[in-house]
Amino acid sequence: MAKSVCGSSDLTDDHLNEHPVITPFTWFGLDVGGSLTKLVYFEPENIPDDDDQSSEIKKAIRIIHKYLSGNTAYGDSGVRDTHLEIKTQLGEYTGSMHFIRFPTAAMPAFIELAKSKNFPLLATTICATGGGAHKFSNEYETQLKMKLRKIDELSSLIRGIHYMESINHNESFYFTSPTIKEKCQKLNYNFVHPYPYLCVNMGSGVSILAVTGPKTFTRIGGTSIGGATFLGLCCALTGCNSFEEALELASQGDNAKCDKLVSDIYGGDYKKFGLPGHLVASSFGHMMDPEKSKAASKADLARSCLAMVTYNISSLARLNAEKQGIENVVFVGNFLRKNTLSMRLIAHAMDYWSNGSMKAIFLEHEGYFGAIGSLLELINPQYDDTSES
Amino acid sequence: MAKSVCGSSDLTDDHLNEHPVITPFTWFGLDVGGSLTKLVYFEPENIPDDDDQSSEIKKAIRIIHKYLSGNTAYGDSGVRDTHLEIKTQLGEYTGSMHFIRFPTAAMPAFIELAKSKNFPLLATTICATGGGAHKFSNEYETQLKMKLRKIDELSSLIRGIHYMESINHNESFYFTSPTIKEKCQKLNYNFVHPYPYLCVNMGSGVSILAVTGPKTFTRIGGTSIGGATFLGLCCALTGCNSFEEALELASQGDNAKCDKLVSDIYGGDYKKFGLPGHLVASSFGHMMDPEKSKAASKADLARSCLAMVTYNISSLARLNAEKQGIENVVFVGNFLRKNTLSMRLIAHAMDYWSNGSMKAIFLEHEGYFGAIGSLLELINPQYDDTSES
Repeated sequence: MAKSVCGSSDLTDDHLNEHPVITPFTWFGLDVGGSLTKLVYFEPENIPDDDDQSSEIKKAIRIIHKYLSGNTAYGDSGVRDTHLEIKTQLGEYTGSMHFIRFPTAAMPAFIELAKSKNFPLLATTICATGGGAHKFSNEYETQLKMKLRKIDELSSLIRGIHYMESINHNESFYFTSPTIKEKCQKLNYNFVHPYPYLCVNMGSGVSILAVTGPKTFTRIGGTSIGGATFLGLCCALTGCNSFEEALELASQGDNAKCDKLVSDIYGGDYKKFGLPGHLVASSFGHMMDPEKSKAASKADLARSCLAMVTYNISSLARLNAEKQGIENVVFVGNFLRKNTLSMRLIAHAMDYWSNGSMKAIFLEHEGYFGAIGSLLELINPQYDDTSES
Repeated sequence: MAKSVCGSSDLTDDHLNEHPVITPFTWFGLDVGGSLTKLVYFEPENIPDDDDQSSEIKKAIRIIHKYLSGNTAYGDSGVRDTHLEIKTQLGEYTGSMHFIRFPTAAMPAFIELAKSKNFPLLATTICATGGGAHKFSNEYETQLKMKLRKIDELSSLIRGIHYMESINHNESFYFTSPTIKEKCQKLNYNFVHPYPYLCVNMGSGVSILAVTGPKTFTRIGGTSIGGATFLGLCCALTGCNSFEEALELASQGDNAKCDKLVSDIYGGDYKKFGLPGHLVASSFGHMMDPEKSKAASKADLARSCLAMVTYNISSLARLNAEKQGIENVVFVGNFLRKNTLSMRLIAHAMDYWSNGSMKAIFLEHEGYFGAIGSLLELINPQYDDTSES
């Protein structure tokens, strides 16, 4: 019988590599967000032959690994981000960490898939984080006979960031000359002395955390104008159907067709208060004018959505950082997935409005840190979950 | 010949009532904003007979006053807000201050009207503020032969607020129990010891000022998500055509049809970080779901726009106030015109998120303070305009 691995250890991440961890090898971390579900799983190079396991379980383990690592698409909407795959060691096992995502709206289909692939045979408990870990708890128990051990999403996020940063030397990066396409460079950032830093998690909504140590942080703010605002507004305004489509549209558009700039109001710069003419004075401010509204393309509308959401987050991040006296601001979350445009806008905004005193840092595994933290919690529990409902 | 009244005095507002001011009686203050132009004018009870004036000028003065105070609508889109009219004394003259607004897009029609009513005969200079004072400067000089004396809009705003507050004992108010319709009360606020206070000016975009004395303030922040974002997005999403229509729609809608709430993601509250289930987690977060998108009415969309803009401004106001250690936050600007809904949402948000330590204060003359400050500047110049271009 498969043993539950939860609640059985007080190892820290530093000790993960020195201690054996517990079979069977169905090590998943789940992060059920407002829009996207992220699934991280560890595939060991060699699955040891455990005499305690029945041949049925051994067979099921092999089938699951073959299915997950042999495909890059699952069902109608599951995708494996192969470019993020990373070799690592968990306990005494070397293997690969894989990263899969699907829309949270497809959760019923995922539960069906899990049933058909015999997941419940292999694990009685899955560590899961994100709001959906609470919302879908009953479905897992009744339909899959699996218990979701609910991990706080912000604790998972921070744990995931620190772990990934420690094993991947190319995890953190920043931009130089972000607004000049020809000169813009993406450079590795040295995360050796990170504390304190601000962590801005851009999912459906946005949470802003002040992180003061490996396990200490405070949620100091947030905004409802996040990734799902960008996508939701783009869908409503342009009829697009996916984040990729919305991003592609935004990349081709000009937000000055929809937004009132400072120069539209002043005829130039507002010099007295240092507001340059090209600055957005009012997002979507042209759309009340029937002629200008007619002239704005779908791409322009998408670009305005992107600019509005991105600049607002930058502005809140900077204000919170100033308030806390923090200089380094780490931006994560799936709003940044494939979204170099927003990353460069953020990099520029942070640098410009802080007069060069703040740096915007980005991480390669963007939206997967909650799921990574959840996987680590499965192997090495650190968080008391008695307070979770 | 009419004398220019600009640059001729160093009186303070406190002395306005002790000194005679200069004829002719065409005392206007203009504030040309990104969306709305505000015109304040003073109508003395008795226009003195000035022997220096030609009979032609005397006649023109009377015609203008009759036209302005005898009507409540001007051209296609000009409106006089009769409920804001107030008796006051300027210099040695008692009279009424009138408040007129029209869309800035109608400025060419306003210039035509001014020409037809012989404005240029009566004033060689008009004191004007707002971005449009810069943008339309040439048009005034070439078409009306009038010079716009450009006054900084934030200085005018603050001057206008302090003046109006000093003459109108009912100017400032706040709300108790803002979320409970039956209990909610609008009460007078005592503005006797106001400094320091935060001033949040919600026009097309938003400026946030820390005001530390009668004439001292700093612009400490702002956002492009302002009144014209609300109206522009409402026009684009619902096909409405005016602010009044957008507000009426919003008053009938339910933003939970378009927005993802914390409970949509968590199935309830996010207790660990004190986020109640009814809180908006992601504005427009439902609109990526084709079924939910179809179910959202125009009124729901308008309400989401209103909630997004209003909550974001509240949040920025609170953050800036916390950063400055300021407890009183004064909200002004035409986004609040007839918009009790936003005022109550702001009052609640400020109280809730500051744990009762901050108070949201509102002013009756909402968006007219820049124009009032500009009128005062005409009569009693205080600001050197050499730095203005």
